[in-house]
Amino acid sequence: MTDRSLLILPGDGIGPEVMAEVRKVIDWFGSAQGITFDVSEDLVGGAAYDAHGVPLTDATMAKAQEVDAVLLGAVGGPAYDDLDFSVKPERGLLRLRKEMDLYANLRPAQCFDALADFSSLKREVVSGLDIMILRELTSGVYFGEPRGIHTEGNERVGINTQRYTEGEIARAARSAFELARRRNNKVCSMEKANVMESGILWRDVVNEIHAAEYGDVELSHMYADNGAMQLVRAPKQFDVILTDNLFGDILSDCAAMLTGSLGMLPSASLGAPMANGRPKAMYEPVHGSAPDITGQGKANPIACILSFAMALRYSFDLGDEATRLERAVEGVLADGARTADLMGPEGGTPISTSEMGDAIVAKLAS
Amino acid sequence: MTDRSLLILPGDGIGPEVMAEVRKVIDWFGSAQGITFDVSEDLVGGAAYDAHGVPLTDATMAKAQEVDAVLLGAVGGPAYDDLDFSVKPERGLLRLRKEMDLYANLRPAQCFDALADFSSLKREVVSGLDIMILRELTSGVYFGEPRGIHTEGNERVGINTQRYTEGEIARAARSAFELARRRNNKVCSMEKANVMESGILWRDVVNEIHAAEYGDVELSHMYADNGAMQLVRAPKQFDVILTDNLFGDILSDCAAMLTGSLGMLPSASLGAPMANGRPKAMYEPVHGSAPDITGQGKANPIACILSFAMALRYSFDLGDEATRLERAVEGVLADGARTADLMGPEGGTPISTSEMGDAIVAKLAS
Ligand SMILES: [Mg+2]
Ligand SMILES: [Mg+2]
Repeated sequence: MTDRSLLILPGDGIGPEVMAEVRKVIDWFGSAQGITFDVSEDLVGGAAYDAHGVPLTDATMAKAQEVDAVLLGAVGGPAYDDLDFSVKPERGLLRLRKEMDLYANLRPAQCFDALADFSSLKREVVSGLDIMILRELTSGVYFGEPRGIHTEGNERVGINTQRYTEGEIARAARSAFELARRRNNKVCSMEKANVMESGILWRDVVNEIHAAEYGDVELSHMYADNGAMQLVRAPKQFDVILTDNLFGDILSDCAAMLTGSLGMLPSASLGAPMANGRPKAMYEPVHGSAPDITGQGKANPIACILSFAMALRYSFDLGDEATRLERAVEGVLADGARTADLMGPEGGTPISTSEMGDAIVAKLAS
Repeated sequence: MTDRSLLILPGDGIGPEVMAEVRKVIDWFGSAQGITFDVSEDLVGGAAYDAHGVPLTDATMAKAQEVDAVLLGAVGGPAYDDLDFSVKPERGLLRLRKEMDLYANLRPAQCFDALADFSSLKREVVSGLDIMILRELTSGVYFGEPRGIHTEGNERVGINTQRYTEGEIARAARSAFELARRRNNKVCSMEKANVMESGILWRDVVNEIHAAEYGDVELSHMYADNGAMQLVRAPKQFDVILTDNLFGDILSDCAAMLTGSLGMLPSASLGAPMANGRPKAMYEPVHGSAPDITGQGKANPIACILSFAMALRYSFDLGDEATRLERAVEGVLADGARTADLMGPEGGTPISTSEMGDAIVAKLAS
């Protein structure tokens, strides 16, 4: 018996392939360490649409609400590009985030030393990089009403609404300050307070929460466009970056690319604590469904495996086990294990998705 | 007598210093080439607020509407940070853009070979970089209504509205396709059609304009967050990037920083043709007012001088003269002339703002 429950949603494209490697890691923790999980699996995205005509069924949604953590692979693919907006694969993901109220999206951008040369940036600019972007995930312009395309006079008009309440900003800010306390105690908040009233409110509320509750954390503010520049110029100046849904979407991807390989990067999306004290939580790799390499054994499972490491740390309070898993990944990379996406100009023979999973499990056991 | 009119708005901070160097270039074209300009000068931003209580007077606005081209230095500074939103220095700039209806913001990101090592990116990733971002500048979330901060129940709510009409998208798209025809004939349009209806309309209208009028131009689409990643990963894949106001704000700054020095980058903001055939136009450096170095002779005037080169090309159809000025800038850089912002790790003695202006004029004459 275990009191740790996981719902695995492999999704589309390479999702199922990389999730199979996470299964090996989960199994190893159970058999070798006695750390067991109650694992169930279901459909999301295009896979759910194909089976049920919707990118996420109500039954799957209900299951996601019950478990301690959801592990998601990836959604989307060219087969679904022409679907109606309301049933696009991404809507399944957005529904999970919205109904589980996963308001804090944690996007680490870490540069493994063995891979620093894969970055388009100079080694000295990125080696040792370790920043965390906290993107507000359940509000802002991707959710605000009114929205849609309608006709005015004789032309179409497209509308979306950027809308933030004080409470939405406050809880994201608290998550960022809490994170910073466990890291290097610095938060930089990014918005466009110079041209957007929602940015002015964002800055005011962050300042108020800081003054009232987190005076020990170093706080700075930056306009989001300058933030994009500073990430490119000198990313190591940051510890935790706090920003809204839309700016976080762009800035977290910009930061991700600084590290040189998206195949490496995990993410966590956290909400409020449940009855058992664990936060509502979903973990997923940053990379997409990569339809171009689906089914070829070329996918890099590391981002998905590191997402499970984040689950160990943030959902199950297994920080030591998370670190052990992260060290195992670092170890196999230092040993020279490379999937196809990590082939440098020096060449070499890539290992398969499955071989990378096996290597990580072997390193865990060593 | 000349039929070429210029309104110079030096603005705040280093604005007046860099504009003084542009004056030298303008004077040289007049005295050495017989290419003369009717030049007037006025206030904008904090300087206008200090004199008149508003960041742009109606009289200055009227003058800007009459001239062929406005040259603007920079606005803003810490003295104005606590002003009411409605009279912040940036509002003066936004008013100019809005009332002149300067819908096409051209942001070149070019990497001068002599300065490629200043980039945080590897030399091979950026050397020879020459991309142009066309940012829609008069609509979108920085202008849409409703906007503001109000109270709902017992909490504040901040709202902005992303709103694009078909016509607004169409004219920006046409500008991008026209630009591409004069460059490498490729346009990549960026939005978030996967999660925003305004992005869906954007993509649809761009496709329609392309099919109807610009089938000879190569068109691709990219989600804006992926665009940020691709700019960092491999910026030379792009020719013209077409995007909206907010995404363009972030992406153009991200692209600017790839080149390694913001002090180098000009911009143009163009509107519809006037009665004389010239477009409504404003030219300005990308850099800000840099209050930390104001009045010390440390500012780099090159961005402002290259902005005047864009004026020569886009307002006055003086492409050869624009190229001559750009070559002069390239020449002084190749000769080793460096303002303080261009000091590399190898050291050396920086020249002043004024010395850089003199060097460029001397190179023009040589
Ligand atoms: Mg994104
Ligand atoms: Mg900007």
